[in-house]
Amino acid sequence: MKGSSEHGETSKQAPLGSSRGVSKGVSVLDLILRFIAIIGTLASAIAMGTTNETLPFFTQFIRFKAQYSDLPTLTFFVVANSIVCAYLTLSLPLSIVHIIRSRAKYSRLLLVVLDAAMLALVTPGASAAAAIVYLAHKGNVRANWLAICQQFDSFCERISGCLIGSFGAMVMLVLLLLLSAIALARR
Amino acid sequence: MKGSSEHGETSKQAPLGSSRGVSKGVSVLDLILRFIAIIGTLASAIAMGTTNETLPFFTQFIRFKAQYSDLPTLTFFVVANSIVCAYLTLSLPLSIVHIIRSRAKYSRLLLVVLDAAMLALVTPGASAAAAIVYLAHKGNVRANWLAICQQFDSFCERISGCLIGSFGAMVMLVLLLLLSAIALARR
Repeated sequence: MKGSSEHGETSKQAPLGSSRGVSKGVSVLDLILRFIAIIGTLASAIAMGTTNETLPFFTQFIRFKAQYSDLPTLTFFVVANSIVCAYLTLSLPLSIVHIIRSRAKYSRLLLVVLDAAMLALVTPGASAAAAIVYLAHKGNVRANWLAICQQFDSFCERISGCLIGSFGAMVMLVLLLLLSAIALARR
Repeated sequence: MKGSSEHGETSKQAPLGSSRGVSKGVSVLDLILRFIAIIGTLASAIAMGTTNETLPFFTQFIRFKAQYSDLPTLTFFVVANSIVCAYLTLSLPLSIVHIIRSRAKYSRLLLVVLDAAMLALVTPGASAAAAIVYLAHKGNVRANWLAICQQFDSFCERISGCLIGSFGAMVMLVLLLLLSAIALARR
């Protein structure tokens, strides 16, 4: 792989030193973005997974309790964020390798494929949860779905806050894809 | 741009003919995937936008009618699919240019940036709509949201079908990103 990833070096027109410096900078930025995305997805998954609220009033048969697993969409949100967080943690060593060997080609292509797959997992999780959280806040008059946030106030605040980390991770993954494309184009 | 995109040609180790052939094949596949994605988003947007159902019974004051604009999420779905369809149509000329000039670098990077942005637009549209369609079918006992599909049967079938085109376009955009990365890595 070394041979195939390093040929063409002599045909570069830009000064070799500055070109390498920029490539290294791109790789370091890649590592930082991965860290931010890990924190975002981890915080979202934990915050959503530990959300529950029990209302102070109850009847003989029903206790009014809300937790994330009541809504299947929020369960998917927790699962998607956990998977993406695990993947990003496992991708850190490869990202560090790219800082040292900034001309690697196939390992970058592998990261592009996996990053795109993870983007296609975290984005549906975040946006489906956003659709449900919107419905919980506003309800829908035409479908006769009532807003549940009047009763479950702190539950609603918590699940709204969880979206931030997930959407942040989504933006980071888009930027990671662009960085990989730039690194592949610069080689 | 010609100079910078075509240097390094002499340092290729693979036979030049076959390498060019593969690059051309990747570019042709890019064009085909764009066509499929255009058809998918266009069909989704039109089918969703023209959905409405009026129930045969009505009272003096209320006529039971369902259309896509009753649910804000479905409105977003139509807008997102229309924008992505328009972008894909405008990107076709650039894709055709890539078939002829398979070593282009900056125009491919531009397409990666825009494709990623469009992926980040169509995916939330499709998945938020899927969350709402799921709710329309199944309802949610804990939140006391009733399934509306018992009344609005053909409306529900239509909005479920619309998701297919949009998710298909999403898969095509992921593949387009990977093709662009491969084309950039092969140069």
